[in-house]
Amino acid sequence: MASRRTFHLESGPPPSSIIIENVAPQVDAGRYPAKREAGETLVVTADIFKDGHDKIAADLLIRRCGAKAWTRSPMVFVDNDRWSGSTVLGEPGAYEFTIEAVPDRWRTWLIDTTKKADAGLDIALELRDAELILRGAEERSAGETHIARALTRFGQFERDEQHDLLVLLSSEPLGDAMRIWADRTSVATLNAPLPLWVDRIAARYAAWYELFPRSSGTKPGESATFQDVIAQLPRIADMGFDVLYFTPIHPIGHTKRKGKNNSVTALPGDPGVPYAIGNESGGHDAIEPSLGTVQDFERLVAAARAYGLEIALDLAIQASPDHPWASEHPEWFTIRADGSIQFAENPPKKYEDIYPINFQNPDWQGLWHEIRRIVLVWVERGVRTFRVDNPHTKPTAFWEWLIDEVHQVDPGVIFLSEAFTRPKVMKSLAKAGFAQSYTYFTWRTGKAELTEYFTELTQTDVADYMRGNLFPNTHDINPFHLQTGGRAAFKARHVLASTLSSVYGIYSGFELAEATPVTGKEEYLNSEKYEFKVWDWDRPGNITTDIARINRIRRAHPALQEYANLRFFWAESDDIIVYGKSTPDHSDNILIAVNLNPHAVRESRIWFDPAAFGFAADQPLAAHELITDQMWRWQGGDQWIRLDPILESAHIIQLSPV
Amino acid sequence: MASRRTFHLESGPPPSSIIIENVAPQVDAGRYPAKREAGETLVVTADIFKDGHDKIAADLLIRRCGAKAWTRSPMVFVDNDRWSGSTVLGEPGAYEFTIEAVPDRWRTWLIDTTKKADAGLDIALELRDAELILRGAEERSAGETHIARALTRFGQFERDEQHDLLVLLSSEPLGDAMRIWADRTSVATLNAPLPLWVDRIAARYAAWYELFPRSSGTKPGESATFQDVIAQLPRIADMGFDVLYFTPIHPIGHTKRKGKNNSVTALPGDPGVPYAIGNESGGHDAIEPSLGTVQDFERLVAAARAYGLEIALDLAIQASPDHPWASEHPEWFTIRADGSIQFAENPPKKYEDIYPINFQNPDWQGLWHEIRRIVLVWVERGVRTFRVDNPHTKPTAFWEWLIDEVHQVDPGVIFLSEAFTRPKVMKSLAKAGFAQSYTYFTWRTGKAELTEYFTELTQTDVADYMRGNLFPNTHDINPFHLQTGGRAAFKARHVLASTLSSVYGIYSGFELAEATPVTGKEEYLNSEKYEFKVWDWDRPGNITTDIARINRIRRAHPALQEYANLRFFWAESDDIIVYGKSTPDHSDNILIAVNLNPHAVRESRIWFDPAAFGFAADQPLAAHELITDQMWRWQGGDQWIRLDPILESAHIIQLSPV
Repeated sequence: MASRRTFHLESGPPPSSIIIENVAPQVDAGRYPAKREAGETLVVTADIFKDGHDKIAADLLIRRCGAKAWTRSPMVFVDNDRWSGSTVLGEPGAYEFTIEAVPDRWRTWLIDTTKKADAGLDIALELRDAELILRGAEERSAGETHIARALTRFGQFERDEQHDLLVLLSSEPLGDAMRIWADRTSVATLNAPLPLWVDRIAARYAAWYELFPRSSGTKPGESATFQDVIAQLPRIADMGFDVLYFTPIHPIGHTKRKGKNNSVTALPGDPGVPYAIGNESGGHDAIEPSLGTVQDFERLVAAARAYGLEIALDLAIQASPDHPWASEHPEWFTIRADGSIQFAENPPKKYEDIYPINFQNPDWQGLWHEIRRIVLVWVERGVRTFRVDNPHTKPTAFWEWLIDEVHQVDPGVIFLSEAFTRPKVMKSLAKAGFAQSYTYFTWRTGKAELTEYFTELTQTDVADYMRGNLFPNTHDINPFHLQTGGRAAFKARHVLASTLSSVYGIYSGFELAEATPVTGKEEYLNSEKYEFKVWDWDRPGNITTDIARINRIRRAHPALQEYANLRFFWAESDDIIVYGKSTPDHSDNILIAVNLNPHAVRESRIWFDPAAFGFAADQPLAAHELITDQMWRWQGGDQWIRLDPILESAHIIQLSPV
Repeated sequence: MASRRTFHLESGPPPSSIIIENVAPQVDAGRYPAKREAGETLVVTADIFKDGHDKIAADLLIRRCGAKAWTRSPMVFVDNDRWSGSTVLGEPGAYEFTIEAVPDRWRTWLIDTTKKADAGLDIALELRDAELILRGAEERSAGETHIARALTRFGQFERDEQHDLLVLLSSEPLGDAMRIWADRTSVATLNAPLPLWVDRIAARYAAWYELFPRSSGTKPGESATFQDVIAQLPRIADMGFDVLYFTPIHPIGHTKRKGKNNSVTALPGDPGVPYAIGNESGGHDAIEPSLGTVQDFERLVAAARAYGLEIALDLAIQASPDHPWASEHPEWFTIRADGSIQFAENPPKKYEDIYPINFQNPDWQGLWHEIRRIVLVWVERGVRTFRVDNPHTKPTAFWEWLIDEVHQVDPGVIFLSEAFTRPKVMKSLAKAGFAQSYTYFTWRTGKAELTEYFTELTQTDVADYMRGNLFPNTHDINPFHLQTGGRAAFKARHVLASTLSSVYGIYSGFELAEATPVTGKEEYLNSEKYEFKVWDWDRPGNITTDIARINRIRRAHPALQEYANLRFFWAESDDIIVYGKSTPDHSDNILIAVNLNPHAVRESRIWFDPAAFGFAADQPLAAHELITDQMWRWQGGDQWIRLDPILESAHIIQLSPV
């Protein structure tokens, strides 16, 4: 019955009379850390109250895990027994915070006695009570100046001096000193500190670009190299991306290798699927030789860094039948009754080019440590961001352990969860440590569903542990609305992804409005998952400059770099979605409107709440449309907009006081 | 950092791959017990899921605290990773429950293999896999019959016998056996069991009647006796009450005794306020001599029991200056700088007839034990229900300790919290152990505020720990709407109190529609708090038979004996409130409509959801109005009602299939 508190009346001080409840942020009662980012102001709120009418003094305490000393800051009463405290967060890593509260006997005395004095009552005895309280504090503080000075004033005093003494005792510095040196014998605190994880800012704010390295070259039917990728860096950096994410770069299996368009037999020259990892050249720590060497990779990492780009790798924990693990560690897989290794299946479908890993095999520790080693090998080679393939097919406990282990080496490593699965499973992976998650954004196109989904993601406590990284497309998903929506749909989806969340990404080809499907499926025809491709990055119809413009706007506007500051507003048209983002100090205010219909001009009355941006209801505003660089003068939140997808499907409007 | 899980890869089995989250009921993550009642079916729900597509087998486990063995019952999948399990609760006391879940390897195999067989694939190897799984279970079960029998069928089998064997392996008894004997090496369970407190049914379902014993007699200006109270029992029982609650029956202080209508000087013969407890005749364990002796009291308790009434006492932990504690334990009070005991005050107001207790005085253990002793003295004398006066002016930690201590002696003791204070403080007292709480019902009269308040109390997780005991009046509160609403208001408020909650009470005089106020205040003129009174219980305008009728309806209808089954419906008129209650099996269905305006006839279209009572949308219904015994035939939830307060302000309608 560990969870039930039972009292025993031992000697010593009584239990505190103060109750602290309903502390935020907390995730599953402290089972998982809430997430924040370096440099952010952490706001902690709690219900704090006690019996009777005594005043309370409450502090927020925070420290890095492992540190001894707490950083203490006073909390303030908000209303309805709710208190709030804040602190600016330092470097990435594990933190913990708690709350301490004691009765504020001095302030209680001061308020009560002032009331009595105001009512003309004699307060001689009250002043003698004060002397007793002051003496206690003087002793604890070993003679704090303000307290000691106040005490010297107590001597003989006449009825008509009471007021002067009360004024003296009402001084703010004395109050502060008495708060600091309050009797803490029965201090109330949380049963256990609450955990907090601080990521680097890129966990919240970044633009991702996904690329198949082998398809970044110019020679048809041949693998590109890391050198070819280096040649792409200026183009990618010019579009304003921060993260360059590669599908797996490891050697690819030969057994049951897939051919073009997922055919079950590969032809000679077919390179295979990069997710069928491992062959005689090595496994997850090796590089496919046709891409280059480890040195080439490290040169690429350095070159990217020079362009302000960091490299993200794909972590797909599965093996081709030719992976070294299959022969060296068959026990890490599921062994069938005939001694064979179980290949992947979704009965009755078979995926014989892939062996799934058994994370709970008898040598599970050996396996887990090997994966840890592999991740740290890549960290060593300069990779600090990993996109994890299908994490929901591996135990969440494994991820919690792995991410914690990697964070002990480098707390700046970011893991993105590619779990397109049931909502609670996605959330549990986020709780377990993934800094970012893919979302259902890829398929959410209607105003109602976008509003509901992003309200849940950003405006509930889900935002305390999960950050949605919005991808309008991926190498696995060529969504129907992009297949049919044309260039306007690509531009609109890009604005939505890059402004609904502070972190988003595209899979290359998106900037070319590429959407040729396998007929009737949300898949790309001639997908580069199965073959080498050569792209014409300047081909007509591309939206490269549009993407670059939006990313420049994101960089210039801190409001778009925040995640949980999203707020939806009203638009009469069902095709127009309107939302806003504002910095906490309202120094940067952005209103976004998107026409979700790529085929039709839409006009609509819209309404936004000026107070959400810190404006008075009828304050005259400068509305600066940032995509087309137009300037309007607005007054109030009741406005009219028109969006023609042939021109621009979206407005991104900076609002400022005139 | 106790709250943060860190993994260490020790030898032994891997952590479970199953996650159990979001378990209900739980109060503050198990810090406090959820409350239920004896004989009730406890329903436990949880999110339970794992990586991949394996099936899960989950059990609910429950036991009395202190017992070793768990009672185990299987949980079932509901939807969206939500599971549910249930168990019937036994006798009152402390229980704990937990959940265990393991991968259901057998069912996973069965489903996958059936799909393969259905697709015409060869399943020879799958059947050999099954044999391995069965062998493991056979070993764990030491030869369970169904498992052993299934294994004997494995021998040589031909391609065309696969189907027969699969049919055999699909048998339900074998599935059950395989579930019971599943591999539990990596069982998932809660970090700690969750606590549950089971009260006797009277904690949820009872009708209370409050009385000043000294005013239950017939001689003006004189104290009535317990014998006079016995004479009242038939009248009170006839009205259908279950609990007879007395204001304090202890000796009353002389010092600064209050006179009639709260005057600061008592005249000779003024009996004083029963809450100024203690004089030379004794304190909280003594009885005011003019009421009778301990033996008289015990006779009264027995006589009440014969009428189906239980006696509830008032626990007001404060002292008059003449209380024995003041001389024997001055250290239990707050001592001022001049050595005097601090009297009660709300600056600048003084209450010099009362000394508040200091629950955190240096001898706090001595004080706490003394109060425990006093409560148990009354339990010994047959009292099992206590109405606690102003619990919010004493530390919640004290109540949590006291109630737990008393429950260790008798888990059937019920404490009602009279905390008319801020919502979070009221809730924290309920969490700490009070079975029932006074509520803001006393002042809530509008439809919107009633709907909002009782939706929160009964339809959110507040209902897991707090039960509102609804009083339309108390000896301290003569609400304005009763002062002006006349008989119709009393009848309407009685129906609301007795049907919005399963537990409610009235302060005597309510049945006489007594509402004479101290002008401009919500107080009774000539309040019996300050004087002896003699009542004419048959005086004209009384609503005694109305009260009796409603209480008979409550007794006949289990739906009205449940607390958390309240559901509000729509009515066009803002003066008409409509709500319903139904038993879990829908065997008893009650629809209530009240005209909240005591001064005007109201007609209104109303709408209720037939599905809330288990009816089809257009099912013909017998609508039996229970107050006036009328019968209507209804079809569908769209109806029309008319309520004339001169006749009846309310309908209580039993709905049944025709």
